Amino acid sequence: MIGPMNVHALPTPALVIDADVLDHNLAAMAAARPGRALRPHVKAHKCTALAALQQAHGHDAFTCATPREVLGMAAAGLGDDLLLANEVLDPTRLAALATAQDTALITVAVDSPETIDAAAAAGLRHVLVDVNVGLPRCGCMPDEAGRIADLARRRGLIVRGVMGYEGHLMAMPDREQQRAKVAESVDRLLAAHALVGGDIVSAGGTGTYHLHDRVSEVQAGSYALMDTYYARMGTPFEQACFVIGTVVSATAQYAVADVGLKAMGMDHGNPAVETLDGQGADVWFLSDEHVTFVPHTGVAAVGDRVRVVPAHIDPTMAMHETAWLVRGGEVLERWPIDLRGW
Amino acid sequence: MIGPMNVHALPTPALVIDADVLDHNLAAMAAARPGRALRPHVKAHKCTALAALQQAHGHDAFTCATPREVLGMAAAGLGDDLLLANEVLDPTRLAALATAQDTALITVAVDSPETIDAAAAAGLRHVLVDVNVGLPRCGCMPDEAGRIADLARRRGLIVRGVMGYEGHLMAMPDREQQRAKVAESVDRLLAAHALVGGDIVSAGGTGTYHLHDRVSEVQAGSYALMDTYYARMGTPFEQACFVIGTVVSATAQYAVADVGLKAMGMDHGNPAVETLDGQGADVWFLSDEHVTFVPHTGVAAVGDRVRVVPAHIDPTMAMHETAWLVRGGEVLERWPIDLRGW
Repeated sequence: MIGPMNVHALPTPALVIDADVLDHNLAAMAAARPGRALRPHVKAHKCTALAALQQAHGHDAFTCATPREVLGMAAAGLGDDLLLANEVLDPTRLAALATAQDTALITVAVDSPETIDAAAAAGLRHVLVDVNVGLPRCGCMPDEAGRIADLARRRGLIVRGVMGYEGHLMAMPDREQQRAKVAESVDRLLAAHALVGGDIVSAGGTGTYHLHDRVSEVQAGSYALMDTYYARMGTPFEQACFVIGTVVSATAQYAVADVGLKAMGMDHGNPAVETLDGQGADVWFLSDEHVTFVPHTGVAAVGDRVRVVPAHIDPTMAMHETAWLVRGGEVLERWPIDLRGW
Repeated sequence: MIGPMNVHALPTPALVIDADVLDHNLAAMAAARPGRALRPHVKAHKCTALAALQQAHGHDAFTCATPREVLGMAAAGLGDDLLLANEVLDPTRLAALATAQDTALITVAVDSPETIDAAAAAGLRHVLVDVNVGLPRCGCMPDEAGRIADLARRRGLIVRGVMGYEGHLMAMPDREQQRAKVAESVDRLLAAHALVGGDIVSAGGTGTYHLHDRVSEVQAGSYALMDTYYARMGTPFEQACFVIGTVVSATAQYAVADVGLKAMGMDHGNPAVETLDGQGADVWFLSDEHVTFVPHTGVAAVGDRVRVVPAHIDPTMAMHETAWLVRGGEVLERWPIDLRGW
């Protein structure tokens, strides 16, 4: 806790999280997928303080994308069941994960003989077989999953089950088509699971969490803070995270605020800009430290504050050191974004 | 200096800088614009170790984009003449800059009564009038520059001159058109300078440094490390910076390396991917921690290393904690990227 401070006393760019909206999002997901039915993905926020709130909402198993996320979660006492849902070959980082097994249950994804060798050589104990369910990224083919599991078991590893992320289906506009495609991806994952065994069948994300009645858990992350990409999908989750900026230069034609592309993940395109009274703006472009925009309500003045809404929450969080938890105009807490890097 | 280490012992993603290519770039620019004729922009690398090399090449005045860049440069003993080429209103950060004036010459850009008030109230002593030369971002109109300078002088500030960044002209494919447009932007800047006075007329960047015979200094930054965006311009500068990745998953159709969009600025589009023998690849897409690609030479194997070439160097540097200086296969030094954040 910090002393009473108004959100507009924060130096900008300031990444703020609305405590009430965050709580709404966490409660809505916990109602839909309680306890272990959700394995929240910490890559979307990289913040152990936020993960602790997810745990308070009933989820004590987490998904991670990097060794540092796993190690940070273990160090924060959030290591009941940590899945590194990613392939790692680096012996130094895998050895660090193996050491952390003294205080945390750590499971790493494998999809090849090489990743199995690396995990076993480092002294890791638990793996999950990563299965390609249609997204051209990591994961073995479903019909190879049994061979991968057998190989892992021969190396002395405990195979806890399968995972398969249908990232290519997260934002399909046609809901019926999405439902059918997700069913196909789950068919592939269950075919692999039949060959692999184990208790875990892990899949899904914020765009498909409601379509998964045949898996043991969903790996959603973005639902907690949201972004304009997922907002288009009409989920029950609301925008909880903004970067507050200050207008540092203004003309009659446009205004410039101090939230640039070093403060905003750009892979999903430009963020949205809102004035504090909730009005939108036309965003012209972002530079390293600036956004040039035109408020729908007309001109802005130097010193005005604006909210910049990320198009993609995950990389945006990774660009900031600090998140400020706010309620109304008051800053409640300073949260270090402490799981950055690799 | 660190002990002998092969670059391929580095954990990935690893941001590496080729020492020889860097030296080539710094020497080429120092030959074209020696000493104070160049004010290197540190926003492009955010690394005091690299700035110290630029100083060793004769440039002891620097351009910065954030208060933290200025403070970090001052703390590193590189404060002979630091220009914050950006408008800042935050009183806390401006006060920190004012304190740093004990050991550094600090000049901040102003373009409005409000930014002048903020600088004067904080106790800053030197300003530069930022002039709009055509890019719709910060900067007053040329015919307003005299009024801004007068206002600053009435507040007791020393007005050192003018700056005007023609960012919209950096990458024009038609060289003659670029030359003509840059001449127009310099006309605007010199018109403002006639109203403002002072010794400094600061403009330009890596895409236009060769077109500036009427200004006192150029603010180029990207030339030191380069990226695929500026490489298209056919400058004498070569690609000095790569992110090395490891292939963590591979099929007969594509491969996946561990360099994702959290390790790579995406605002200029996808990076390029090269295998270690210099062959290119078709890049399909980047996810948070992965790039999916197809090498032109055919399949890749798990464990292979690749070079990922940034499309935009500035935000890429800001995503990494460490740069590794390498020569051939040997790691020479570990450089903290110590000017990140605001």
